[in-house]
Amino acid sequence: MITVEVALPGRAYPIHIAAGLLARADLLLPHIPGRQVLVVSNPTVAALYMAPLRATLQAAGLRVAEHLLPDGEVYKDLEHVAGIFDTLLAENMDRRCTVLALGGGVVGDMAGFAAACYQRGVNFIQVPTTLLAQVDSSVGGKTGVNHARGKNMIGAFKQPSLVLIDTAVLATLPRRELAAGLAEVIKYGLIRDADFLHWLGAHADALLQGEPQALAQAIAVSCRHKAAVVIADEFEQGERALLNLGHTFGHAIETHTGYGSWLHGEAVAVGMLMAARMSQGRGDLSADEVAGLEDLLRRCGLPTQAPAMQAADFQSWMAHDKKVLDGRQRLVLLRALGHAEVVEVDADELHRALLEMLHA
Amino acid sequence: MITVEVALPGRAYPIHIAAGLLARADLLLPHIPGRQVLVVSNPTVAALYMAPLRATLQAAGLRVAEHLLPDGEVYKDLEHVAGIFDTLLAENMDRRCTVLALGGGVVGDMAGFAAACYQRGVNFIQVPTTLLAQVDSSVGGKTGVNHARGKNMIGAFKQPSLVLIDTAVLATLPRRELAAGLAEVIKYGLIRDADFLHWLGAHADALLQGEPQALAQAIAVSCRHKAAVVIADEFEQGERALLNLGHTFGHAIETHTGYGSWLHGEAVAVGMLMAARMSQGRGDLSADEVAGLEDLLRRCGLPTQAPAMQAADFQSWMAHDKKVLDGRQRLVLLRALGHAEVVEVDADELHRALLEMLHA
Repeated sequence: MITVEVALPGRAYPIHIAAGLLARADLLLPHIPGRQVLVVSNPTVAALYMAPLRATLQAAGLRVAEHLLPDGEVYKDLEHVAGIFDTLLAENMDRRCTVLALGGGVVGDMAGFAAACYQRGVNFIQVPTTLLAQVDSSVGGKTGVNHARGKNMIGAFKQPSLVLIDTAVLATLPRRELAAGLAEVIKYGLIRDADFLHWLGAHADALLQGEPQALAQAIAVSCRHKAAVVIADEFEQGERALLNLGHTFGHAIETHTGYGSWLHGEAVAVGMLMAARMSQGRGDLSADEVAGLEDLLRRCGLPTQAPAMQAADFQSWMAHDKKVLDGRQRLVLLRALGHAEVVEVDADELHRALLEMLHA
Repeated sequence: MITVEVALPGRAYPIHIAAGLLARADLLLPHIPGRQVLVVSNPTVAALYMAPLRATLQAAGLRVAEHLLPDGEVYKDLEHVAGIFDTLLAENMDRRCTVLALGGGVVGDMAGFAAACYQRGVNFIQVPTTLLAQVDSSVGGKTGVNHARGKNMIGAFKQPSLVLIDTAVLATLPRRELAAGLAEVIKYGLIRDADFLHWLGAHADALLQGEPQALAQAIAVSCRHKAAVVIADEFEQGERALLNLGHTFGHAIETHTGYGSWLHGEAVAVGMLMAARMSQGRGDLSADEVAGLEDLLRRCGLPTQAPAMQAADFQSWMAHDKKVLDGRQRLVLLRALGHAEVVEVDADELHRALLEMLHA
């Protein structure tokens, strides 16, 4: 088992990574203060993993209730979080209860937001079951829901007390979702770790084929990067913003096409490539480096072409992004492979760059 | 002007108290980081004070939008907080915007919760316009909304960056609401300050008549007590729970009668008297002390009789209270005037006490 410590002052928590952890009550119990647990999941994941997890918790004497969210990003809204509150109250869950997220990023974001708000905050545990959630959303405490006018506009910073990553669950993950998770893995290489990017180039095929050893290694390195960034900047005042590489473009794609038709990781993959092209336009990356990234994304089963959208479409969605401050667009761009930076871009430069990229 | 500092580590903020502060841009501006302000209010308060506040902010070059909530505790729910998010997004408010609550406790709780969740947290300023909000809810960072199954079940701890108390606004406050505010003022005396309780006995008539000097004094002492408790225990792990004197009974009254028919302070007044009677039953208060409290509440224009409710009604509502931990009811009771304590009470003792109190 690999353990990555997220050493936040006063709220440090471990990320345990290995095959078979769903059955490990000894890892879960030290992080459950009361006797009540609400497992939040969705029908797809619950059909596979609810029974064993419930058995693990009940064998330890805990009272376990469950709440299933409909499957998909389109349901990641305030109304469906309200449904979690209804269940928490119907089950008489008290302030010392634990909300446990068993699922992908959507389940984790919504369960975490519910845990942040229920009785002004109860204990929260993440058991992420997609690669994307394992390497990204389950670590770092960002929770929340979408609004018709923009992604993740409503939420809270809520750190879990434990992240339990059972790599065995990836065996049942659809290949398309595995690929989407790899987009965020590649991101850590792009913004922080050129060596890791090189390693990914050498192991892309193994990863996409679900080779357990390669995946565990990629997850551990990713979690270490994520944890380091979160510790340095929990509330996204500075360095943490670099994790948004590709996300501003990606959110525009996701929003424009309607949540759910593009997977988050797929949109981020295209968004990272767009950011890389913009960095190339500014003279910071070579054409070869951008082509290398495009090749890596493709080998990881990821899209490299934006959907049919105009430059104005991007700009209009991007104007709602949280990275807009007093009207100026802030973008994460690459100064080199393994080194990212937040750059303020004026509307004209962005428009010209979008025109070039979209008609390329 | 009296200033009470709430010295929370890293998030210290001032409470300014004086007549005429709504016009004081110099006090507001140091606490507004961006250029966008959403003032959240209700039609009653807005009709009186929106124009002058807006003028103050606009004169300082800020862009001011407003969102009016319907007036009343019955609307303090997640759905109406969603309306604030809609306005924030429709107005393109960014992460550096400020949400300013202009109103009573309901406006402050909802605006504060919206500020806590919008883009995972934006700047928040409280301008409380009721006595209750000035001495209680605007200080300390508790925000949130009710759920059909219980009060304040959904919320966040969100500290304001400034609390601006313009005592002149109390001149337009209905007498019934002034009285309701006095219930919380009396509470500080009961739990922490027997001298203040004595002072309140001597000034009850002046306070209920709205005598400015007496009110300013009562507000300042109350805010100092509230601030001291919040600093000692921001997240209500210990001492802060003492502020809930009378609230567990009070919430049962409010919930049973339907939010809004009893004012919060009225329910707390009866709840404090019920707690005092229970303390008397345990031998901690004398019959004279309880009669003295009843007299003080009456002179402050507050009710001293519970509505027509059975013991079982109380117990069923109280079972949903946040102070229930693993099934045991925790109550704040008085060990003496000026000294409160959290006590765990079993269901039988509570039932017997309720029977006696309700049939007394």
